[in-house]
Amino acid sequence: TVSSVEFDPDEYLRNFEYGRLSVSETGQTIRDYTIIAEDDKIQEISPGIFYNVWTFNGTVPGPTIRATEGDLVRVHFINNGSKEHTIHFHGIHPAGMDGVFEPVGGNGGQFIYEFEAGPVGVHPYHCHVMPLEEHIVHGLYGVFIVDPKEKRSPADEMVMVLNGLDTDFDTENNFYAVNTIPFYYQHHPIQINTNELIRVYVVNMVEFDPINNLHLHGNLYKYYPTGTDLVPSFYTDMITLSQTERGIMEFEYEYPGKYLFHAHKVEFSEKGWVGIFLVKDN
Amino acid sequence: TVSSVEFDPDEYLRNFEYGRLSVSETGQTIRDYTIIAEDDKIQEISPGIFYNVWTFNGTVPGPTIRATEGDLVRVHFINNGSKEHTIHFHGIHPAGMDGVFEPVGGNGGQFIYEFEAGPVGVHPYHCHVMPLEEHIVHGLYGVFIVDPKEKRSPADEMVMVLNGLDTDFDTENNFYAVNTIPFYYQHHPIQINTNELIRVYVVNMVEFDPINNLHLHGNLYKYYPTGTDLVPSFYTDMITLSQTERGIMEFEYEYPGKYLFHAHKVEFSEKGWVGIFLVKDN
Amino acid sequence: TVSSVEFDPDEYLRNFEYGRLSVSETGQTIRDYTIIAEDDKIQEISPGIFYNVWTFNGTVPGPTIRATEGDLVRVHFINNGSKEHTIHFHGIHPAGMDGVFEPVGGNGGQFIYEFEAGPVGVHPYHCHVMPLEEHIVHGLYGVFIVDPKEKRSPADEMVMVLNGLDTDFDTENNFYAVNTIPFYYQHHPIQINTNELIRVYVVNMVEFDPINNLHLHGNLYKYYPTGTDLVPSFYTDMITLSQTERGIMEFEYEYPGKYLFHAHKVEFSEKGWVGIFLVKDN
Ligand SMILES: [Cu+2]
Ligand SMILES: [Cu+2]
Ligand SMILES: [Cu+2]
Ligand SMILES: [Cu+2]
Ligand SMILES: [Cu+2]
Ligand SMILES: [Cu+2]
Ligand code: NA
Ligand code: NA
Ligand code: NA
Ligand code: NA
Ligand code: NA
Ligand code: NA
Ligand SMILES: [Zn+2]
Ligand SMILES: [Zn+2]
Ligand SMILES: [Zn+2]
Ligand SMILES: [Zn+2]
Ligand SMILES: [Zn+2]
Ligand SMILES: [Zn+2]
Ligand SMILES: [Zn+2]
Ligand SMILES: [Zn+2]
Ligand SMILES: [Zn+2]
Repeated sequence: TVSSVEFDPDEYLRNFEYGRLSVSETGQTIRDYTIIAEDDKIQEISPGIFYNVWTFNGTVPGPTIRATEGDLVRVHFINNGSKEHTIHFHGIHPAGMDGVFEPVGGNGGQFIYEFEAGPVGVHPYHCHVMPLEEHIVHGLYGVFIVDPKEKRSPADEMVMVLNGLDTDFDTENNFYAVNTIPFYYQHHPIQINTNELIRVYVVNMVEFDPINNLHLHGNLYKYYPTGTDLVPSFYTDMITLSQTERGIMEFEYEYPGKYLFHAHKVEFSEKGWVGIFLVKDN
Repeated sequence: TVSSVEFDPDEYLRNFEYGRLSVSETGQTIRDYTIIAEDDKIQEISPGIFYNVWTFNGTVPGPTIRATEGDLVRVHFINNGSKEHTIHFHGIHPAGMDGVFEPVGGNGGQFIYEFEAGPVGVHPYHCHVMPLEEHIVHGLYGVFIVDPKEKRSPADEMVMVLNGLDTDFDTENNFYAVNTIPFYYQHHPIQINTNELIRVYVVNMVEFDPINNLHLHGNLYKYYPTGTDLVPSFYTDMITLSQTERGIMEFEYEYPGKYLFHAHKVEFSEKGWVGIFLVKDN
Repeated sequence: TVSSVEFDPDEYLRNFEYGRLSVSETGQTIRDYTIIAEDDKIQEISPGIFYNVWTFNGTVPGPTIRATEGDLVRVHFINNGSKEHTIHFHGIHPAGMDGVFEPVGGNGGQFIYEFEAGPVGVHPYHCHVMPLEEHIVHGLYGVFIVDPKEKRSPADEMVMVLNGLDTDFDTENNFYAVNTIPFYYQHHPIQINTNELIRVYVVNMVEFDPINNLHLHGNLYKYYPTGTDLVPSFYTDMITLSQTERGIMEFEYEYPGKYLFHAHKVEFSEKGWVGIFLVKDN
């Protein structure tokens, strides 16, 4: 039976899943997650536009998994879809945990991905079954954050997945978005405070197009490519990202008000990749 | 009435507008600029090819505005066009000075953009009225340079705006250029000296295409992305830029002679984005 | 007469040509190379797909030329093709050695390119005769490595040229590859050892497409853009490169097994730009 998806971009934005915690005999922190794949859901991604999303835990993107460097990560993967799927993580792990040569059958197939969290940074995960573009454009991806042992400074943290939607299956995206719903954060601005550090984990998952980019209005951000270095590489308002390029943006607004952020590939912003920060006086 | 544009790329190349200077009671330097938008001019951008350019102060790009970090910048904007226009600066400023939610009416509408110059670097400015791609591709953009308080080292400085011209309105560029005129600096090489520091403020404003790039012959340049850091990030002869990506290039030639610079996206160089440095013995 | 090309990507991968060595009166190392251009060869680049390759020393890419910073490089160029060709090096050299304004006639025309090797890094060379896209897409390119005087640390070193093949001449690539043969290193995995430093000199020469990119599985690499700095700029598993962008990747695998590397521009990987590292326990 086909079921429809309920997805709340506001909830997704600041939601981090730390897993079920335990400690090994050697004192290592163990984090257990369960991720279930499905490929029969329908989502109304824009008024009157229905899209067959393929989901991890019922949504696109899937859950944001978060761990600290050196933790043991165990992802209990269940494929309740009709096709083969996997989870392939970007990052460091043994070959057998790579989600490439071990397709997991549908209708209940299972696999446990187990590896040490690392390196520090922000990494995509996605299904790696062929044809890859189909499994990606339908939504089988999410974000994996590895925190440094010495924590980053306190901040208002959020996740932005830049994605595209090819609703008519012609290998060109009809819509673009931050977190799946075109224009969502334009109609529902993201509320932040003046003089508070904002930290955005951003991942580009757009299929088909060669690059995406991200412009912030009235401000610049420190940018940490891949998030692997604790010192920023750039201070800018424009980055260019090809598929799975990602990083961490940090900024503060001094002045209250409404500020756009959007692709400066204008076509993408006009098809939904645009949002607003509503900055309130702190 | 339609009027034609006279634009001299040689004059534009090394022209910086520092504004009308005054000093506030607190000792802050104030720089007042006047920028007038028009949208009815015709420019012969290539022999026999006429294009309806939309201009800031009568040219594409508009004037290169230059200030020092911390100066008060006041841009007196007059819209003498027939459509609404604004000036949106990349950089740091209050929401109300962002040129997005305050469209300025044509036939004489006015607005004063006022903010402190910052951060140090090279930033584009452009009209932000929708449809954005139309206002950009017709030419409503220019360059804003913020100098550090401690000046950069002496150099032969110039501005290069990489732009595209969609002369038949099909959302594909027919011509590409440095500073608007295809092939201009190939036919009129830029004269520089051996063993003299060259500093180029480069901004990519090409609409429609995902990226642009810039190759220098017989040499490499230090590259400062966005110009926000006083230490170079790269030493290369090839950078890739999506729209509004920009930076500062620094180099010296040891040997005299003619050296090409051009897009290594070969299509762009064949459609006009190519020039020559003519290096003379110092 | 048309002759067919024998090209072995395994041999190409780790082959470096240091030239014929001599020493000048002042003690400078001199390296003499001979490069012969041809434009009449046919290569079966994929089963049943024949392509008219234009070659430097009989192969695409041409030989990997290697020297140490400050060496005198002398390339004896012989054009045995039917069209004019040149060799244009990216790097530092006098204008007259740039291979642009000195076309070398076919049927035996000759030119000697002479310059000091520099700067340290990895640089492409390619023919610079117009129409440039035709001379590039047919294969007239190769890699030039300049080693620092203080050698880099010992490593298993290899060269990867990312290229495209437009076999039906419509200015769109039909195949993509690492080192010319689509899917080659997928069918013939590159054998490396655990806990041994791998150093890859990578150069993107793909024509027509705006960018290429490179993802490594189960690992991240230190990335040195252009190879000009001895300190890495990034630690990532994904880089984006436009034509002639290049750099040095360094990594070690801790765990044995099979790991993919491929374009994350999925179309390119599906058309041949994909390979495997087969990591053996050291
Ligand atoms: Cu992957
Ligand atoms: Cu802006
Ligand atoms: Cu903008
Ligand atoms: Cu060159
Ligand atoms: Cu070149
Ligand atoms: Cu991967
Ligand atoms: Na979910
Ligand atoms: Na579509
Ligand atoms: Na002007
Ligand atoms: Na056009
Ligand atoms: Na060869
Ligand atoms: Na083709
Ligand atoms: Zn899948
Ligand atoms: Zn991936
Ligand atoms: Zn904007
Ligand atoms: Zn406008
Ligand atoms: Zn902009
Ligand atoms: Zn060139
Ligand atoms: Zn040639
Ligand atoms: Zn080149
Ligand atoms: Zn992969």
